[in-house]
Amino acid sequence: MAKWKTVFVTGGAGYIGSHCIVELLDAGYDVIAIDNFANCVNDPKGEAPSLKRVEQITGKKVTFYPCDLLDKARLAKIFSEHEIDCVIHFAAMKAVGESMQVPLLYYKNNIVGTINLLEVMKDHNCYQLVFSSSCTVYGNPDTLPITEDHPTGTVTNVYGRTKYFIEEMLKDISAAEKNWNIVSLRYFNPVGAHSSGLIGEDPTKAFTNLMPYMAQVAIGNKANLTIYGGDYDTVDGTGVRDYIHVMDLASGHVAALSKLQKEHLRLKTYNLGTGYGISVLQLLRTFEAVTKTTVPFEIQARRTGDIVSMYANTTLAETELGWKAKYNLEQMCQDFWRWQTMNPDGYRGNSTTKVNGSASVNGNHVNGH
Amino acid sequence: MAKWKTVFVTGGAGYIGSHCIVELLDAGYDVIAIDNFANCVNDPKGEAPSLKRVEQITGKKVTFYPCDLLDKARLAKIFSEHEIDCVIHFAAMKAVGESMQVPLLYYKNNIVGTINLLEVMKDHNCYQLVFSSSCTVYGNPDTLPITEDHPTGTVTNVYGRTKYFIEEMLKDISAAEKNWNIVSLRYFNPVGAHSSGLIGEDPTKAFTNLMPYMAQVAIGNKANLTIYGGDYDTVDGTGVRDYIHVMDLASGHVAALSKLQKEHLRLKTYNLGTGYGISVLQLLRTFEAVTKTTVPFEIQARRTGDIVSMYANTTLAETELGWKAKYNLEQMCQDFWRWQTMNPDGYRGNSTTKVNGSASVNGNHVNGH
Repeated sequence: MAKWKTVFVTGGAGYIGSHCIVELLDAGYDVIAIDNFANCVNDPKGEAPSLKRVEQITGKKVTFYPCDLLDKARLAKIFSEHEIDCVIHFAAMKAVGESMQVPLLYYKNNIVGTINLLEVMKDHNCYQLVFSSSCTVYGNPDTLPITEDHPTGTVTNVYGRTKYFIEEMLKDISAAEKNWNIVSLRYFNPVGAHSSGLIGEDPTKAFTNLMPYMAQVAIGNKANLTIYGGDYDTVDGTGVRDYIHVMDLASGHVAALSKLQKEHLRLKTYNLGTGYGISVLQLLRTFEAVTKTTVPFEIQARRTGDIVSMYANTTLAETELGWKAKYNLEQMCQDFWRWQTMNPDGYRGNSTTKVNGSASVNGNHVNGH
Repeated sequence: MAKWKTVFVTGGAGYIGSHCIVELLDAGYDVIAIDNFANCVNDPKGEAPSLKRVEQITGKKVTFYPCDLLDKARLAKIFSEHEIDCVIHFAAMKAVGESMQVPLLYYKNNIVGTINLLEVMKDHNCYQLVFSSSCTVYGNPDTLPITEDHPTGTVTNVYGRTKYFIEEMLKDISAAEKNWNIVSLRYFNPVGAHSSGLIGEDPTKAFTNLMPYMAQVAIGNKANLTIYGGDYDTVDGTGVRDYIHVMDLASGHVAALSKLQKEHLRLKTYNLGTGYGISVLQLLRTFEAVTKTTVPFEIQARRTGDIVSMYANTTLAETELGWKAKYNLEQMCQDFWRWQTMNPDGYRGNSTTKVNGSASVNGNHVNGH
């Protein structure tokens, strides 16, 4: 049983947040979660369907408040009403393309939201934080695999810039105020879903991430997958990323909490990836094999600014957090597909009782959608 | 007479703001100024003594509101009550050393304040902005003199990081939304004061800028001046900066306004410096000669992170703004000293009527303070 009892989770109803809460509850933590439903749906009662499913999976309760980090008074009230030992800060606007269209909104939500959170934490004498950063802070990498000391800051999009700016703020704050104890986790490319099929990624915006988009093609909602760049200097010419199962990410957060309880780090940064680079075509072929579907695709010209190849050196997390990704690409596809087929409309219109985990998982089953 | 009528000035009661307002009023603009008195004193009535002096100098009125940019509702109210054509955004916390001690406060004030301002401007359909940036965004320069296309971002302090982050935000916002028309001005090292001696720099925090500190030594308030690093690869071994008369800076802002009225730039960045690098010892000797004082100094070891040499290439501002600094180092010292000797306690305890411009300017006169 953990020495710390209560973990406060921002963005708790979202894709990574909800999966992480499963792991937190399983590890014995109490969880207080907030979300503003910017990236995920709420049910008619204003509750978070994803967290109802989390309760179904774990048999434990999640305390949830609808709350926007921009509403500092409300946030402070929640902190006043609970004894919070540690914060995991997932909440952010995260659509790369959208971030270039409405940058002021992204800066406001991500930066001001984080500043509010840090101020409220200080006011309530809570200095333990796990921050959701991203491999986008590395920009176009100079060397592969990427270690945590790779230069950051030449970021190619606004979303990534908000993550980079927050990382820099956390560096400065933890250098100036010795109470802070922060782990910043740089996620590579999260995919997959909990093996129950009850929770998963439910994009409220356009399908821009590769696997959800691939699934839309597989089930016939989209004609084909466009792959930008087929002549890169990679295994098969397509872009390479480090896909990581969301449950591996989740366990990385529990490992980070354990680390923070054992040591006063001030600030430490860890990559969370598998260490393996997978090309778009490799992912596509694995996805097709696992799901027994066909994903028609076309290869178009490279796009300016796209990063060719990006995968993590994970030695630091292995050594210092005692954490290592354990799910392979087949499992990522399998678990994603189970979620997708059991919940073709995501959380919309489903109550927890309608879900029973027995849906047959195959391509034909969902092709009619 | 300018086509634009009304300029809204944030941080208007501060050092650079107040000098700029003199130039704006002289150029025929109406000025609405706000300040939160973070860097400058207010009088017992909550008014800005510096702006009373500005009115004395120009014979024109300044509309002033005490207002913090973090108070977005109040800011919006002011925008609702006036027809504002353009904004000059000086307001910021600016003490480099302090910024390393209380980074969260600096990020909050400078970044959140700017986001609030940009949002209120958008809400009131005002997209014309001159932003106060700083040469600190260049970090330790790779090449001298520094042109505007020199890389930015490897900033050595929190204050500079807030300026860099805002520059990046402005880039993203002006790229995404075509209405924006922004000039970002990178100041080098502002010194001096208005030639009347009525307005000048009145630090409310520790004397960390070189010339005010030098003056404190000259008048005997401090024992000697510590110069860090006497063995740099410069003309005499001491650090080199580009000192610019604050009235030259001020006229640079008027030039920027003219440019914005003539062209839709979206975003353009200009250095405001003289183009000349001056060493600490050169400044000190000039200061001593002009003020007929002696400034005892001692040279100590270099400090880690200090920048050796930094001066502007000013070609872009000359070519595109038709602006060039015209005051020399003697005038900077002379004007600073006039302000200092006429106002040994800055704006504190002085009313506008007590100031008459006839104070004798010499070392003995002020040595008794």
